[in-house]
Amino acid sequence: MIVILKKDPNKEQLESLIDWLKEKGLQIHVSVGVSQMILGLVGDTSTLDIDLISALDIVEDVKRVQEPYKKANRKFHPGDTVVKVGNTQIGGGNLTVMAGPCSVESEAQIVAVARAVKDSGATMLRGGAFKPRTSPYAFQGMGAEGLELLKLARAETGLPIVTEIMDTAQIDLFADVDVIQVGARNMQNFNLLKLLGRQEKPVMIKRGLSSTYEEWLMSAEYVMAEGNKNVILCERGIRTFEKFTRNTLDIAAIPVLRRLTHLPIIIDPSHATGKAFLVPDCARAAVAAGTDGLLIEVHNDPEHALSDGPQSLRPEAFDKLTKKLLALHAFIKEQEA
Amino acid sequence: MIVILKKDPNKEQLESLIDWLKEKGLQIHVSVGVSQMILGLVGDTSTLDIDLISALDIVEDVKRVQEPYKKANRKFHPGDTVVKVGNTQIGGGNLTVMAGPCSVESEAQIVAVARAVKDSGATMLRGGAFKPRTSPYAFQGMGAEGLELLKLARAETGLPIVTEIMDTAQIDLFADVDVIQVGARNMQNFNLLKLLGRQEKPVMIKRGLSSTYEEWLMSAEYVMAEGNKNVILCERGIRTFEKFTRNTLDIAAIPVLRRLTHLPIIIDPSHATGKAFLVPDCARAAVAAGTDGLLIEVHNDPEHALSDGPQSLRPEAFDKLTKKLLALHAFIKEQEA
Amino acid sequence: MIVILKKDPNKEQLESLIDWLKEKGLQIHVSVGVSQMILGLVGDTSTLDIDLISALDIVEDVKRVQEPYKKANRKFHPGDTVVKVGNTQIGGGNLTVMAGPCSVESEAQIVAVARAVKDSGATMLRGGAFKPRTSPYAFQGMGAEGLELLKLARAETGLPIVTEIMDTAQIDLFADVDVIQVGARNMQNFNLLKLLGRQEKPVMIKRGLSSTYEEWLMSAEYVMAEGNKNVILCERGIRTFEKFTRNTLDIAAIPVLRRLTHLPIIIDPSHATGKAFLVPDCARAAVAAGTDGLLIEVHNDPEHALSDGPQSLRPEAFDKLTKKLLALHAFIKEQEA
Amino acid sequence: MIVILKKDPNKEQLESLIDWLKEKGLQIHVSVGVSQMILGLVGDTSTLDIDLISALDIVEDVKRVQEPYKKANRKFHPGDTVVKVGNTQIGGGNLTVMAGPCSVESEAQIVAVARAVKDSGATMLRGGAFKPRTSPYAFQGMGAEGLELLKLARAETGLPIVTEIMDTAQIDLFADVDVIQVGARNMQNFNLLKLLGRQEKPVMIKRGLSSTYEEWLMSAEYVMAEGNKNVILCERGIRTFEKFTRNTLDIAAIPVLRRLTHLPIIIDPSHATGKAFLVPDCARAAVAAGTDGLLIEVHNDPEHALSDGPQSLRPEAFDKLTKKLLALHAFIKEQEA
Repeated sequence: MIVILKKDPNKEQLESLIDWLKEKGLQIHVSVGVSQMILGLVGDTSTLDIDLISALDIVEDVKRVQEPYKKANRKFHPGDTVVKVGNTQIGGGNLTVMAGPCSVESEAQIVAVARAVKDSGATMLRGGAFKPRTSPYAFQGMGAEGLELLKLARAETGLPIVTEIMDTAQIDLFADVDVIQVGARNMQNFNLLKLLGRQEKPVMIKRGLSSTYEEWLMSAEYVMAEGNKNVILCERGIRTFEKFTRNTLDIAAIPVLRRLTHLPIIIDPSHATGKAFLVPDCARAAVAAGTDGLLIEVHNDPEHALSDGPQSLRPEAFDKLTKKLLALHAFIKEQEA
Repeated sequence: MIVILKKDPNKEQLESLIDWLKEKGLQIHVSVGVSQMILGLVGDTSTLDIDLISALDIVEDVKRVQEPYKKANRKFHPGDTVVKVGNTQIGGGNLTVMAGPCSVESEAQIVAVARAVKDSGATMLRGGAFKPRTSPYAFQGMGAEGLELLKLARAETGLPIVTEIMDTAQIDLFADVDVIQVGARNMQNFNLLKLLGRQEKPVMIKRGLSSTYEEWLMSAEYVMAEGNKNVILCERGIRTFEKFTRNTLDIAAIPVLRRLTHLPIIIDPSHATGKAFLVPDCARAAVAAGTDGLLIEVHNDPEHALSDGPQSLRPEAFDKLTKKLLALHAFIKEQEA
Repeated sequence: MIVILKKDPNKEQLESLIDWLKEKGLQIHVSVGVSQMILGLVGDTSTLDIDLISALDIVEDVKRVQEPYKKANRKFHPGDTVVKVGNTQIGGGNLTVMAGPCSVESEAQIVAVARAVKDSGATMLRGGAFKPRTSPYAFQGMGAEGLELLKLARAETGLPIVTEIMDTAQIDLFADVDVIQVGARNMQNFNLLKLLGRQEKPVMIKRGLSSTYEEWLMSAEYVMAEGNKNVILCERGIRTFEKFTRNTLDIAAIPVLRRLTHLPIIIDPSHATGKAFLVPDCARAAVAAGTDGLLIEVHNDPEHALSDGPQSLRPEAFDKLTKKLLALHAFIKEQEA
Repeated sequence: MIVILKKDPNKEQLESLIDWLKEKGLQIHVSVGVSQMILGLVGDTSTLDIDLISALDIVEDVKRVQEPYKKANRKFHPGDTVVKVGNTQIGGGNLTVMAGPCSVESEAQIVAVARAVKDSGATMLRGGAFKPRTSPYAFQGMGAEGLELLKLARAETGLPIVTEIMDTAQIDLFADVDVIQVGARNMQNFNLLKLLGRQEKPVMIKRGLSSTYEEWLMSAEYVMAEGNKNVILCERGIRTFEKFTRNTLDIAAIPVLRRLTHLPIIIDPSHATGKAFLVPDCARAAVAAGTDGLLIEVHNDPEHALSDGPQSLRPEAFDKLTKKLLALHAFIKEQEA
């Protein structure tokens, strides 16, 4: 960490700051320039509160050199984390395909979709039981009943299930889910993150609408700091000025996170774009860039099109796509071998 | 609502759509152009799920004409909402000044700050007991004990208190708080919003980091749809590409919300800018633009500067500023009379 | 175009508006609702000034249905545009690889890089002679002399050259360049666009830092409206809140533009990310998503590393990457055949 | 400037870097930590190319401490710049009100508007002769003839005129204009900036749609580095995710720029919001925050409403507003005295 001081800092305040930093176990290197003095802090600064130092009268600016996350940091954990879910593994060279409808609507629907996506090559079933909707007047999901239907679909197909938790009070309902998803709007629901850190199920954290990589990794750190190492990151598009697509898929997140963290990375092209016709090319891009998996929305029942989002693929389109993606993944893997 | 159809839509699907819309009690006006057909939907479309319609094969685009919020909409409630809190009122021509430290740290601290800000003209005391921090290693607030200290400060000064709730599980602890704050990161924590709608205390909803006006008002609608009409909106800066300031204060939010909604509007220049030297001019701007109130962070103890954020004002600076702001408010009010 | 009127519009103003619209050759469909009246305009609205209508007292909002661009619009030109440059073609199923240094610095440098990238499979040479730099104190490029050196490198290798024009006054200097590049900061330099429309050389328009797809296509329309159909679009990252990468590569731009326009699309992963270690995965993603080409910065002289940007690849890295990209392109093409 | 090195940097490369920096006249302070080495550079780093250093293999990151602009920097020029224009002064405690139509359309129009705004208290006349329009099919302005009409209006009223230049080739036409405006889309048209630096007329630089304060000040630096000190900055809203307003007015720009630079600051609430009903409150906010002036669009002819933008005020509304703004400015000035 580097502390840039204002011109001619008050001597007593400076000494007090230096003493305080030394108490924290840090070494301090002082650079005195013509118009500014700089303190270089050497040691573990991850638990240092940058806001406290910035608040000091004598300080002009503080710049971090070291990342503020430790358990999620590849520097301290060079090997890839592989998360085991049922018979599958997320990370470690696999391409995990999570697929299913936006919302669980009925047993018939979820079982039919689960079978279809399994046949196409999906290795996990997704489906929303608790739905975060912008409007209080929109369908809020089937709730606990939806979770039961997901388990039924799992029993029928053997596909592990991933579904979203919205509140700490729901935790007991998620005892028999395979992967618990934290939605974009809850990425900084710190109480929820802590609670999920105190249990053992894998947690998939979607990136917040306007969250930086660092904030996202700090949310992973919240879970990991409590003891749960099974964290998966899911990029689902960020909010920008461009409104043609629902969000902007940040494809560079894949190689960026690969460098910064050891955690597996999933790409959700359905929410990232909001339009079904963009999903195939974006999914292909993600596989080529080295994603560990994809989260894709699949239409449940083309005959009743009123029940799905505009970003969902029909089962036939998903089938074609998945086969190509798996072949592409194999091709890329061989190229990189 | 306007539904723009693709060229040569399938007749059966079109009829099925029109029937479904009529069942919802809507009138449909059809405009047939050379290259496109348009449906104009007339009636109450606020409960219509725009995503469902967009998902149809025959639909190219859907555009809302009517706002999706009703209870928060000024069109249906022309008169200003005035929220009563203890002896004060938020809205209705007053300038409410909420002030206090970022975090409650001790009895001595919070009581001293409460006295100071009251003497300067503040009408409410703010202070964080539960603190949403980006890092799990940063100070997370005093929790329940902090709430007790806030109540002590209230007893000493008579100032009503506003403080942040972070999770539905904390609701009982907030039974004796005056205004419950929903932080920016929880603006779309829909379970929390619903719960706060089912109790009677005023709720102050901070705008999410990258939330549109419409999304923000939909969050207010969540609270109001459950029965609680005492909702206050607080602009605290939005996330943009500019990083010199912590966020970008959206000053136009004041006249925009004045037009769209009847709810009172508070401006938080401290979080919006992240730098104490910007607070006075931004507070002045907010008053001149017609805000109903301000939320300002005040340093507790200049002798121990390590305990406050870089955006906090010292009590003397706050005192000078508040006196000027109250005079400015009176001046503007007279100009507009 | 849809015009949403305010409640109870003034009759005379409404009639005057309707007459004016009819004079423009448009048909008007009126939908009268309980709280709002809507006009659906049918006909060619591309030359209608949306701002003029929005400004009317009786108008609440105006929404476009039709895109405002015509010559760049795939709806009116279904077949892909293929731009011929020397012996190569941009678009039409090829993968064009444009490579070279950020700036031309000397004959030795540019000739050496040109030879290296040609050997690796590049089909065009890029290099900056006029450099738009944020600081007036930074190197501004070699100017006219740089253009001569590019031509020398072309003579040596046969690679066509693409280089940036910064001002209308430079046009004569570009008479013997193969493709004229309009930089992101000049995307809405309309005088420059018009001038480039009045000559015949292909023009490659980089997307502005915060330009929407529509604005970008309107810039292409400026060139095409003057008669030059040889327009190429280049995505180079957009500005967002995320600052770890220089910009955010918008990978979805590829399938979006494929749908909206018939013009070829190039991806520049070097500027989009600003970091060399991100270039290979982002380039792979672009090829998988169906780009028509790539623009990649290549280090000129690893021995004098002080002369290149942090996003440049060394020739050996570029060589490895290009071979893989060409194989990936062939693989994707076969999958999609 | 601080250079953060990668772990175990190559010794030869490190020595070569240190030698190169010393040649530039800089002192280097080395801080060796457990996992990282840091170089603190002391001296004038404004002409150092940060990209060159970042590109080095041994460098992980480079952070600026000193601002990269000098002539525009308040640190080196503590006193406010006051720009003289005809009989008025911009900066130095005045409130300059620039007003007029979006576009010059006829002699009758511009003279009538000029008289009206003068009567209301405006001190400068604005009007567009060359209009940057997103669409090539929209009205592009009257061009040179428009400039002549502006001069006629000046002759009639005595109001100095400010109007936009779009291209270096137009410079001779602007010989008799009072203030030359550089539009947001040309903020980084560096050739134009240099040319305007080589003449003496005041230059008003509008902030680019997504330009940071630093980039904006660097554009001012381009003009000043060529010798022209008469630079005025104009904030006109930045591009964000919020689309209800055309742009987001960054009100904090006023106190931020006041700290960073000595140049005068103008606020354009008309373009910043894009809606006339938001202009009065935003203008008030700007005055309260200490702006040096305002740029306001005024309707020319309410009878022919088809010729103005939705953000223009009618003369009567402008008259009322300006009187209040001048009184508010006097009130604020007295408060701050």
